[in-house]
Amino acid sequence: MNATDIVHYTQTLGLQAKTASALMASASAAIKNKALTALAQLLRTHSAALQTDNAQDLERARAAGLAAPLVDRLKLTPATIETCAQGCEQLAAMSDIVGEVLELRQQPSGIRVGRMRVPIGVFGMIYESRPNVTIEAASLSIKSGNACILRGGSEAIHSNQALARLVQQALTEAGLPPEAVQLVQTTDREVVGQLIAMPQYVDVIIPRGGKGLIERISAGAKVPVIKHLDGNCHTYVDDPCDLAMAVKIADNAKTQKYSPCNATESLLVARSVAAAFLPRIGAIYAQKGVEMRACPESLALLAPVPGARVVPATEQDWFEEYLAPIVSVKVVADVEEAIAHINHYSSHHTDAIVTSHHMHAQRFLRAVDSSSVMVNASTRFADGFEYGLGAEIGISTDKFHARGPVGIEGLTSLKWVVLGEGEVRG
Amino acid sequence: MNATDIVHYTQTLGLQAKTASALMASASAAIKNKALTALAQLLRTHSAALQTDNAQDLERARAAGLAAPLVDRLKLTPATIETCAQGCEQLAAMSDIVGEVLELRQQPSGIRVGRMRVPIGVFGMIYESRPNVTIEAASLSIKSGNACILRGGSEAIHSNQALARLVQQALTEAGLPPEAVQLVQTTDREVVGQLIAMPQYVDVIIPRGGKGLIERISAGAKVPVIKHLDGNCHTYVDDPCDLAMAVKIADNAKTQKYSPCNATESLLVARSVAAAFLPRIGAIYAQKGVEMRACPESLALLAPVPGARVVPATEQDWFEEYLAPIVSVKVVADVEEAIAHINHYSSHHTDAIVTSHHMHAQRFLRAVDSSSVMVNASTRFADGFEYGLGAEIGISTDKFHARGPVGIEGLTSLKWVVLGEGEVRG
Repeated sequence: MNATDIVHYTQTLGLQAKTASALMASASAAIKNKALTALAQLLRTHSAALQTDNAQDLERARAAGLAAPLVDRLKLTPATIETCAQGCEQLAAMSDIVGEVLELRQQPSGIRVGRMRVPIGVFGMIYESRPNVTIEAASLSIKSGNACILRGGSEAIHSNQALARLVQQALTEAGLPPEAVQLVQTTDREVVGQLIAMPQYVDVIIPRGGKGLIERISAGAKVPVIKHLDGNCHTYVDDPCDLAMAVKIADNAKTQKYSPCNATESLLVARSVAAAFLPRIGAIYAQKGVEMRACPESLALLAPVPGARVVPATEQDWFEEYLAPIVSVKVVADVEEAIAHINHYSSHHTDAIVTSHHMHAQRFLRAVDSSSVMVNASTRFADGFEYGLGAEIGISTDKFHARGPVGIEGLTSLKWVVLGEGEVRG
Repeated sequence: MNATDIVHYTQTLGLQAKTASALMASASAAIKNKALTALAQLLRTHSAALQTDNAQDLERARAAGLAAPLVDRLKLTPATIETCAQGCEQLAAMSDIVGEVLELRQQPSGIRVGRMRVPIGVFGMIYESRPNVTIEAASLSIKSGNACILRGGSEAIHSNQALARLVQQALTEAGLPPEAVQLVQTTDREVVGQLIAMPQYVDVIIPRGGKGLIERISAGAKVPVIKHLDGNCHTYVDDPCDLAMAVKIADNAKTQKYSPCNATESLLVARSVAAAFLPRIGAIYAQKGVEMRACPESLALLAPVPGARVVPATEQDWFEEYLAPIVSVKVVADVEEAIAHINHYSSHHTDAIVTSHHMHAQRFLRAVDSSSVMVNASTRFADGFEYGLGAEIGISTDKFHARGPVGIEGLTSLKWVVLGEGEVRG
């Protein structure tokens, strides 16, 4: 498409989404749930066909020399399709939060004032690779009464088109407008620039992907962006603490999976427990092949661990999100130095303390300026499902609107409702 | 100041505010309340001195030929100073919402997950004329545990400087950092451009003033802006309704005060009650000198009203915020046409229906996409005090974060807290 066509195409998507959003906002819970269960059924009955469409993307990816793990992420297996179907059914089973009125209270004037939860309107989602995100975003959009415009990666276009067709079929079967979920049908990159700059049609953008993509989108967006750039998460081992618990948590937080944004990248240890703690966790990291980038004090304690790969940390290491079998390690004086370090270097995503001291726990909870703050738990828990949100559309490290894992509630807004019996201002 | 000095000056304010904000966030409710009651006392004991400082601004304003109503808005009288003092005491008497934990619930993994209310950090406020806003903003900032940078209008600089000195004295007396509330000491306009573009120091900007000012700030800001541009508020008179109530509300909403953003600017009337309703309200508007800009149908009903100033409405009138004794009037078919008109022309500030039909009320509440939606009450109620927020820092017509009147809660953010007993991800 040429530039004029792209503008026209994207504006048409926007106008259609805006029109559909008004119908979605008034749709009953029963009808939205009907669309979700219909979608679950369609995914199951079209499982084989979806895999055929997906095979085209996989073939093209392999031919283009995409690395095997990336090809894997593209793959729609019977199991991933079934998981998508179950996700839709779980959303259908959840109670509807749209229209709920919070804290309706009578004021001295006589009016009753509360807040009603309503859909935001239209969100645009920009994501890469995994085609199941198409179903996650579509189902959350339907449940929350929004309309959405989905822009998946070009590498997954055939899979996404097949999935989006099923979503629109499910919407139609339920009597909802198919334009409530629209997939961008072209892989032209210029569409993204348009999509993020149409405040008249699109209320919020949710980008998921690499830091570069998200930075570009944030810089160019003319509407709010729900995002996180980095997950430089910390686990701080305090004195006093249960050392066995600290070892278990520091192990899990770093090594259970290296790629998620909620994996711990930096380990802080109170000086008075460092000699007891570091050799124990160092042995586990050594065994699992985790490189340790250590401050001078921790280096002295970790270097003697058999098989340990320990190197001196640079200033840059304290800022780094490795997403790899690497961890930075630093000895600190106490909980106050840990808090100061975290608030300076952290990406404000998720930070944890392991402690058995009540006041240290309270102080850490209050003072650490991150979207999730944990006591005696693995940072890996920072996740919409683990938090009981039912599903997750993204994670935000901003302080406004949704912060941390974003579920259905993050796709809604609270407007004020005032119920009177003829009251006027005196 | 030259450009380099301005950058340096504003950055210094920012750094000092950021540093103070961490101390404010951990300050106890008792200490913050002590600062607020100290400020109330200081305002009372310095009432005469404040009026002397204020007299300089008034003199300069009169000399510059400022219109009398604008000079009036600048004035600090014993009564306005006492109102400021009482406002501080009312805030001190309110319970503290900082640190409250909402909905702490156990998840299947064993972790307990909730959300803690924390201050946002640093806000920048840009406002014009009325110097009492300095005290309103300072006291809300203290109560909510934030730091703030205040940029008042050059016409009120002496008054604002005198007030800000008292605020800093109160902070110091309570043992809090005086940099928690800083007034920009120069009237250089370039400071504003700097202030709104320091995301490393300032978390949010709250502009209050004319539409032009707010548009410039929104366009240039590198951080979120809590704002409203327009208050094109509607009152829709439905069929069926209590006609006497409709007359009372339409009168109050338009004429109780013409300048506030929550005054009704456009009156919609269901066709089937137009002949009964419009002549009655028209007679009141005529008597109060309110010009009516009417659609053809309402023109026919209003023109015969003795003394009425009725002119045909243009398309532009439906968008207009008059802030004056002018109202646009339109006959619509029913509640659906009213909703469609409002969602198209309204500024999403405050819109009301007068009805005795339950389903019409529900439909209006759900479907009107505004920050406040009212049934059988005057739009003039859209206000932080009337809503029970205790105080108001501004009004937002955006859907993100705070929507509608913004009080202390709007100056806070909810972060996730996770309490575990050693749980790890399986």
